[in-house]
Amino acid sequence: MAVQKKHAKGSVRPASPGGRFTDARVPDPAIRSLFDEKNRWQRWLDVEAALAAAEADVGVVPRKAAKAIAQAASMKRLDADRIRAGIAATSHPLMALITELSNEVGEPHGGWVHWGATTQNIIQTGFVLVLREVHTRLLDLLGQVFAALGDLADRGAYMACAGRTHGQHAVPITFGLKAAAWIDELSRHADRLGEVEKRVFTALMGGAVGNFESFGGKGIAIQAGVARRLGLLPMAVPLRSISDSFAEYTCILGLLAATGGKIAAEIYTLMKTEYGEAGEPLPEGTIGSSTMPHKRNPQLAQDCMTISAQIRALAPLAMEGMMHDHEVNGANFEMTLDAVERSCILTGDMLARLNIILSGLELNPQRMRANLDLTGGLITSEAVMLELGQSIGRQEAHDVVYKAAQTAARGKMTFSEALCADPHVTSHLDRAAIKRLLDPSTKTGLSVSLSRTGARRARKLAGLLTSPKRRS
Amino acid sequence: MAVQKKHAKGSVRPASPGGRFTDARVPDPAIRSLFDEKNRWQRWLDVEAALAAAEADVGVVPRKAAKAIAQAASMKRLDADRIRAGIAATSHPLMALITELSNEVGEPHGGWVHWGATTQNIIQTGFVLVLREVHTRLLDLLGQVFAALGDLADRGAYMACAGRTHGQHAVPITFGLKAAAWIDELSRHADRLGEVEKRVFTALMGGAVGNFESFGGKGIAIQAGVARRLGLLPMAVPLRSISDSFAEYTCILGLLAATGGKIAAEIYTLMKTEYGEAGEPLPEGTIGSSTMPHKRNPQLAQDCMTISAQIRALAPLAMEGMMHDHEVNGANFEMTLDAVERSCILTGDMLARLNIILSGLELNPQRMRANLDLTGGLITSEAVMLELGQSIGRQEAHDVVYKAAQTAARGKMTFSEALCADPHVTSHLDRAAIKRLLDPSTKTGLSVSLSRTGARRARKLAGLLTSPKRRS
Amino acid sequence: MAVQKKHAKGSVRPASPGGRFTDARVPDPAIRSLFDEKNRWQRWLDVEAALAAAEADVGVVPRKAAKAIAQAASMKRLDADRIRAGIAATSHPLMALITELSNEVGEPHGGWVHWGATTQNIIQTGFVLVLREVHTRLLDLLGQVFAALGDLADRGAYMACAGRTHGQHAVPITFGLKAAAWIDELSRHADRLGEVEKRVFTALMGGAVGNFESFGGKGIAIQAGVARRLGLLPMAVPLRSISDSFAEYTCILGLLAATGGKIAAEIYTLMKTEYGEAGEPLPEGTIGSSTMPHKRNPQLAQDCMTISAQIRALAPLAMEGMMHDHEVNGANFEMTLDAVERSCILTGDMLARLNIILSGLELNPQRMRANLDLTGGLITSEAVMLELGQSIGRQEAHDVVYKAAQTAARGKMTFSEALCADPHVTSHLDRAAIKRLLDPSTKTGLSVSLSRTGARRARKLAGLLTSPKRRS
Amino acid sequence: MAVQKKHAKGSVRPASPGGRFTDARVPDPAIRSLFDEKNRWQRWLDVEAALAAAEADVGVVPRKAAKAIAQAASMKRLDADRIRAGIAATSHPLMALITELSNEVGEPHGGWVHWGATTQNIIQTGFVLVLREVHTRLLDLLGQVFAALGDLADRGAYMACAGRTHGQHAVPITFGLKAAAWIDELSRHADRLGEVEKRVFTALMGGAVGNFESFGGKGIAIQAGVARRLGLLPMAVPLRSISDSFAEYTCILGLLAATGGKIAAEIYTLMKTEYGEAGEPLPEGTIGSSTMPHKRNPQLAQDCMTISAQIRALAPLAMEGMMHDHEVNGANFEMTLDAVERSCILTGDMLARLNIILSGLELNPQRMRANLDLTGGLITSEAVMLELGQSIGRQEAHDVVYKAAQTAARGKMTFSEALCADPHVTSHLDRAAIKRLLDPSTKTGLSVSLSRTGARRARKLAGLLTSPKRRS
Repeated sequence: MAVQKKHAKGSVRPASPGGRFTDARVPDPAIRSLFDEKNRWQRWLDVEAALAAAEADVGVVPRKAAKAIAQAASMKRLDADRIRAGIAATSHPLMALITELSNEVGEPHGGWVHWGATTQNIIQTGFVLVLREVHTRLLDLLGQVFAALGDLADRGAYMACAGRTHGQHAVPITFGLKAAAWIDELSRHADRLGEVEKRVFTALMGGAVGNFESFGGKGIAIQAGVARRLGLLPMAVPLRSISDSFAEYTCILGLLAATGGKIAAEIYTLMKTEYGEAGEPLPEGTIGSSTMPHKRNPQLAQDCMTISAQIRALAPLAMEGMMHDHEVNGANFEMTLDAVERSCILTGDMLARLNIILSGLELNPQRMRANLDLTGGLITSEAVMLELGQSIGRQEAHDVVYKAAQTAARGKMTFSEALCADPHVTSHLDRAAIKRLLDPSTKTGLSVSLSRTGARRARKLAGLLTSPKRRS
Repeated sequence: MAVQKKHAKGSVRPASPGGRFTDARVPDPAIRSLFDEKNRWQRWLDVEAALAAAEADVGVVPRKAAKAIAQAASMKRLDADRIRAGIAATSHPLMALITELSNEVGEPHGGWVHWGATTQNIIQTGFVLVLREVHTRLLDLLGQVFAALGDLADRGAYMACAGRTHGQHAVPITFGLKAAAWIDELSRHADRLGEVEKRVFTALMGGAVGNFESFGGKGIAIQAGVARRLGLLPMAVPLRSISDSFAEYTCILGLLAATGGKIAAEIYTLMKTEYGEAGEPLPEGTIGSSTMPHKRNPQLAQDCMTISAQIRALAPLAMEGMMHDHEVNGANFEMTLDAVERSCILTGDMLARLNIILSGLELNPQRMRANLDLTGGLITSEAVMLELGQSIGRQEAHDVVYKAAQTAARGKMTFSEALCADPHVTSHLDRAAIKRLLDPSTKTGLSVSLSRTGARRARKLAGLLTSPKRRS
Repeated sequence: MAVQKKHAKGSVRPASPGGRFTDARVPDPAIRSLFDEKNRWQRWLDVEAALAAAEADVGVVPRKAAKAIAQAASMKRLDADRIRAGIAATSHPLMALITELSNEVGEPHGGWVHWGATTQNIIQTGFVLVLREVHTRLLDLLGQVFAALGDLADRGAYMACAGRTHGQHAVPITFGLKAAAWIDELSRHADRLGEVEKRVFTALMGGAVGNFESFGGKGIAIQAGVARRLGLLPMAVPLRSISDSFAEYTCILGLLAATGGKIAAEIYTLMKTEYGEAGEPLPEGTIGSSTMPHKRNPQLAQDCMTISAQIRALAPLAMEGMMHDHEVNGANFEMTLDAVERSCILTGDMLARLNIILSGLELNPQRMRANLDLTGGLITSEAVMLELGQSIGRQEAHDVVYKAAQTAARGKMTFSEALCADPHVTSHLDRAAIKRLLDPSTKTGLSVSLSRTGARRARKLAGLLTSPKRRS
Repeated sequence: MAVQKKHAKGSVRPASPGGRFTDARVPDPAIRSLFDEKNRWQRWLDVEAALAAAEADVGVVPRKAAKAIAQAASMKRLDADRIRAGIAATSHPLMALITELSNEVGEPHGGWVHWGATTQNIIQTGFVLVLREVHTRLLDLLGQVFAALGDLADRGAYMACAGRTHGQHAVPITFGLKAAAWIDELSRHADRLGEVEKRVFTALMGGAVGNFESFGGKGIAIQAGVARRLGLLPMAVPLRSISDSFAEYTCILGLLAATGGKIAAEIYTLMKTEYGEAGEPLPEGTIGSSTMPHKRNPQLAQDCMTISAQIRALAPLAMEGMMHDHEVNGANFEMTLDAVERSCILTGDMLARLNIILSGLELNPQRMRANLDLTGGLITSEAVMLELGQSIGRQEAHDVVYKAAQTAARGKMTFSEALCADPHVTSHLDRAAIKRLLDPSTKTGLSVSLSRTGARRARKLAGLLTSPKRRS
């Protein structure tokens, strides 16, 4: 009966559908709830209030009516249960909310609620408002990841470890360079998320087919007013079939997920028994729960790998969603919304986990060093060759080093011994020089500098992304 | 304020995440609940009971203990709240259930619960039991679709309509041929779902790494006994990294979804104002709800189109999930489970909608006929040419008909008039013969026969898939 | 034997693998050849020359050597056959080119060729140079599409046609609005392609693992020099495992492909026999080749639909390619390159076809108008209701119009007749007023204005994207 | 200049587009050429000959004509250059071939060539014939892989190595168990490829829209005759919009690719410097080409990882291809063909590489054993606990072992030392018993037996798949 405890945590399904076994360990990224009924309804009300105000600006709706609507447009004043009942009765997502709002506004202004608008205008623009909240939250989470990575790049700046290409030891680096590379990729994702804002945070107020017909010639001004009041940009062509920016958003999250999955997989690999160079933090007590205390399952890294695949799989759905026929096809719009919502929620889950992993990542420089020595100095053969080349010429240096390397590869002696046994070498380099040249910790190029630069960059980004201004 | 009613239903988000606006119109396919906590726990208990019994068979566990465990292994006897509390306390998905079961069994047999098993053995095998229930449900839903399609093939067997290739009228068919083609594709999906059973409904009881180490040499017999008791097949190599059959299942559902989406898109198209040949049924009162009574939004067809895309997007995730490193990677297993569960739930939603659409599909033979006439007889030009060829030779017949067709294409006269104005034609065919040859309803080849054959095939499949034997 | 001519063109495989049946009809977009061996080698030589020059700047390589290398680094001076033979002999992609270049430079400078660089530094930076050429070509093709769309938006600005939502007639628009929406989407793709330039056109000169080890502390300056000379930006962290911007490029082409496929599918639909509103241009003589002259297969539109799906399918490959382990995994790099190259080639093929389709698109305003009348005026019921509401109040107007609409839906009389038969209507509106209100061509909102604005925007973008400055 | 040699092979682009750097190392799987023009044309001729013969059987075509056509229907008798010129002149893929064939048949029988058929009937059925040849070739390659795996399972049957779950050492296995798991997955892919044969190898002879109109009532018999003569099955509903089985084929190759990629990635991992347990074979002389002789880039494994991703990305394309509108859409058909062709070619490339890798895989049992010892015996802690439990009870045994394990985890002494220092242990087990219990090579459960069984299974499958009967 003991066995079952061992591997359970990383490999089983959560009790609640959509949840994960590790959820209790991870602070709620608070994305899911932003898509909830209550928040969505409030954003719809915000759009209705902005619409009335914008219509008042151009004389379509009385100013007093717009004010009354603005005051009533709060879920604190409306009856959620009655709205729910109304939705069930009408099989319509918005009508009941409008009725409730109209009643709350009362006579004589209630009739001006939703004047000239199409349901979709409210719902899509409201969705954009929700997405903007989600976006701010995602940037904040990303900022926390940058902060963790900044510390990590500094912590690992001087820890020499093997640089590996195609799975094979190549040339030494320091651990901080890995963090710097992650910071570099993530910084571009932050740029992308910044650049997309002007495209995705837009108000749609063009009526059923985007030609403003129902606003009597004042549609462009009304849409502009709605957008301005909500801090959005107006859509140049407010057609409901246009959803490229939502798809782009999903793609950017897909790219971010690829980086997140790559980071998690690297840590998963470095945690392997054969590597032992890094360790995902484990909460107190977790170690004690198993009969195999050497076993530290990389639960959160695994979560990130799973989530990464889930997010990346949504990009094609978002792209297919773009392909409306005519002026709108609800089937496509649903594909888009599903892709956006799901990718946002999953990205929140991934970033929250990455934050825990990276801010608490245990580094094991002893093990890094031990691994560096696995090739018996071959990892720095290039340095020996270059030094020797100063004396005997590049080509001969290559041949001499190559011969020593092959001797070492045959296992007869170490690379160091082979070099010391070759007079072509020893006539130019003494043992101490050879030893110094074979020390991988001194052959890491600009790894330290790149780590430090990365750390500064990460801290700066952390500050920008989590600033109160950003959040508001 | 009137406008908003118009297009809402097909294009907005449901109140509940994961739900759909049309859910109230569609009977619950009852897939989602099979993946729920309660049903999952019961299937885990079923596996524990089968394990104890199989171990009793080979003398590892006392027979009395196995019987006591079998009696206690029911959620009716266990305390779900206590299990939930235990899961929260242990952060372990199965341990609390085992403790509860052991306590319910009591002394002296409780200690034999879960003897020698790994958590994953119970959870994956239990998942397979759930999937088998889901599978039966999906086949039943598919059977209902076949029944609806059988009727549809018969109803449309004699309704002549345009056969269209590359979006252009080609040669006449009857509507029933469309249904026959759908039946044909779906019948192969039913075959695939049948063929995969022997691969996917298998018991995993190989321990942590698939080598039966914890069963003291009797593992193969125990796994075989568990499998036999649960109506499953034993895995030849019970490694947790093997998940190709789950991925295959997701792919089959993806193929089924492509057909489902294709059917729905065809109906969506035939419902277009320009076509008007078919109509998704609308519930009583729905028509009255809009200011545009000509507007019949194909809500359920659109749902199917959305769902189709969602399911198809899961195939790559399931394939990526197959790619475990070493003897298992929980990250991959989670990808697989997510892909399977989500694709099953979505397939249920799609089939339930297809069933409503197809069983209530309104056909409009007048409109089909009117559309057939859109080319003024050109759609049957081939028949005229073949008939004429009997008298004047194939090549000359081709030239004569081609000339008339071009005259018609230039819009100067109809194709019929052009033929009647050409002595090369009229010296061999009189007006009545020409009229007869141009009647598209007589030029549908074997469409009727293929429709009838398809209908019989569909009814037979409906019977097989929804039979009580199947269900049990 | 006549039949086979009919449908062949749109549905069969090309003679040459990778080609298309329609290739002879379409001017070569000239992307494929940019990825060819010869051009690739020249770009590698360009990088070698820039490297030597940058190294001369920091005193690593003699200035004279750099000049000699620059002069020799041209495929006009090297022997391609000898390079090919060398590649076969060494099983190495770059070594033979370097040898050939060194020999051409000759003594005493030949030995400075490729000083301190890693193969991948040359190959990836050279690939970026190729991609920049491809990029310029793609922007030029996109500019041509904008020019065609500008004309189309103007041509269709006043052509009233049905606005359709969920496949159903909703409210009238003009054809130009469709073009304006396409321009709008494409303009954002142009923006994305502009924004990605700073990320994707970067030089990689960091050595095997990105730490500049082999450049003796001067690596950052050397990389900066190489980048400056080639008109690129230096990579902040020159690690070969970083490929997010290549994946982003593939995603942007995927988004562009979704729009391209959407445009093509819309035209495919509008060409259907039931629509007849638009027609892809057919080259002279094509009509004459078939026995069904009414059949105009949308060959190029179908090509675009196929290509769109092919491009979109590459986004996940590019994302998966990002997920290197350690400091590089060649397997991932190959995924990335395959996704980028293939998506670029396919995008060129798609844009070349879109250009033909859109610049020669035949519009049929008569058929648009006939289709507008399919609902017997119901498409403008909203306008009647709003006008009537001025007199009898919104709610009663709604009820009156709704009743007439239902009468029309039952087929007893037309909507117009039903309105004229109702005293609630006729006491406020005379026949002429009703007729005027039911004229869909006057109810297109701001469609004309949006079309005109779109046309101007397209022409401006066409100018920007195809300008000689851009091209150079 | 030396550096560039190092990493080139695994990470650079091939000289020829679509080719790979390693192509020279790998025997041609001979799939690509089967899709070539020449072979395709011959298969089309085969279909024309079968059509004439089947039509002769039902009296539609004279028997003598059918014989003459059969004799002429060989590319050895036709002029390929003239056909190519004809294709260019007619912009039609089949017409020129038919003309050439008719001329070769000559009078009086030439006119009966292609009687009643549609181009697509010939081309699709011909494509199926090509696919069957490809299929036979793929099965043969798969058979070779089974043969290699059979040997590998035997070779590794007794080599103890770490069983790893979630990247962590769990319980020992033997290397043969890995091979047995691969054999198990691949055997199901072989089953799938067998089951799909009856669905995919079918003749399409239903005319333009699948209703046999052009065959005057004898279509079903003619299609059956064509199918019988070509060794195919007739399509039940011969509609060109039906392509589910082609999509299924692509999905099966996608599943196979997931397994292939998984095998390759496992070998890539086991080749890592930190593992060193296995090695992809390197051709003679390759070692000598680099300055880092410890570096053995897993070129072919990396190829397989890339190819796996490329194949898996084609499944969604094939599924999207299924979604024809109406009776055929050439755009969808092209998606399908592209997905099938490309996935077949790539699968051939992958299997050819897997065959080299697996048949020459170097195993390093010393390194396996060294890795097994990385946890200092903790990997067998379960065995100690079970043995001890016989004497002191399960619970106390757990506590004792757990304590020793924690001591070891703190690094103060080894697990073995900790056990030997605890009187609770030593009072029941002596040093020799403890040493024996901690020997991982004796704790591999049924790994040996499963390896042996897998080897037999693989050899049997190798025999079946590569048998001459299969091939013919």
